[in-house]
Amino acid sequence: MPECVFCAIVAGDSPAAIVAETDDLLALLDVRPVSTGHTLVVPKVHAARLSELDDALGARMFALGHRLARAAQAGPLHADGTNLVVNDGRAAFQTVDHVHLHVIPRFAGDKRALLGRLLRRRPRTSDGAAALLREGLAD
Amino acid sequence: MPECVFCAIVAGDSPAAIVAETDDLLALLDVRPVSTGHTLVVPKVHAARLSELDDALGARMFALGHRLARAAQAGPLHADGTNLVVNDGRAAFQTVDHVHLHVIPRFAGDKRALLGRLLRRRPRTSDGAAALLREGLAD
Ligand SMILES: [Zn+2]
Ligand SMILES: [Zn+2]
Repeated sequence: MPECVFCAIVAGDSPAAIVAETDDLLALLDVRPVSTGHTLVVPKVHAARLSELDDALGARMFALGHRLARAAQAGPLHADGTNLVVNDGRAAFQTVDHVHLHVIPRFAGDKRALLGRLLRRRPRTSDGAAALLREGLAD
Repeated sequence: MPECVFCAIVAGDSPAAIVAETDDLLALLDVRPVSTGHTLVVPKVHAARLSELDDALGARMFALGHRLARAAQAGPLHADGTNLVVNDGRAAFQTVDHVHLHVIPRFAGDKRALLGRLLRRRPRTSDGAAALLREGLAD
């Protein structure tokens, strides 16, 4: 039986730094962040590809990403911008076969740091980033 | 009075290769595509940043991108994957100050070509790509 890392988190079998939760979505910190506060919005139901994802659920996934982008910029994380990204398919750099939306807070002048982290994805702690995003969401 | 290239297209004052249109969205080919069929989903109403964009309209923008991703892969363009990307803010590489969602069809083995085009964005004709995407949408 193949394991899905996101389904394991949704089931409560794997830990994650949760940023937000709705009836059918979970937002959690990426464990190999390319920027501080790099968050993934994950539908709770398993869908490997966009082609399998319900349209309305996809729209809600984006809407939560939209709220997180606002929270990252208007809230205490003080981001200057945000990239919202879905990589659908191996050809498009998808690495976990469970649809997810990247919410990548951006900071003025962080381009070189971001590219370095993209080339060397590795686990980094992002202490406090989830709390700062949650605070931004609450405003 | 500052000009907005997307508002000019919406107003019919600038030409564009239209891929799809709804009441409040226009999908058109990017004039400097990073891949064949690179499309932008543009809200008809002007909003410079995600923070100014209505939540429901943002969700509809993504939903049309979702449909286009399906059309690019299931239709005659025969893409193998898709990147869906919003760059919000200069810090996040936003270059046109009118919110838009990039729909970037991806093809197995195109990584080098894509990176080259990203580094040297320039006008390219993409003859037929709009028609192939429209055909995919119609299926
Ligand atoms: Zn899963
Ligand atoms: Zn405009």
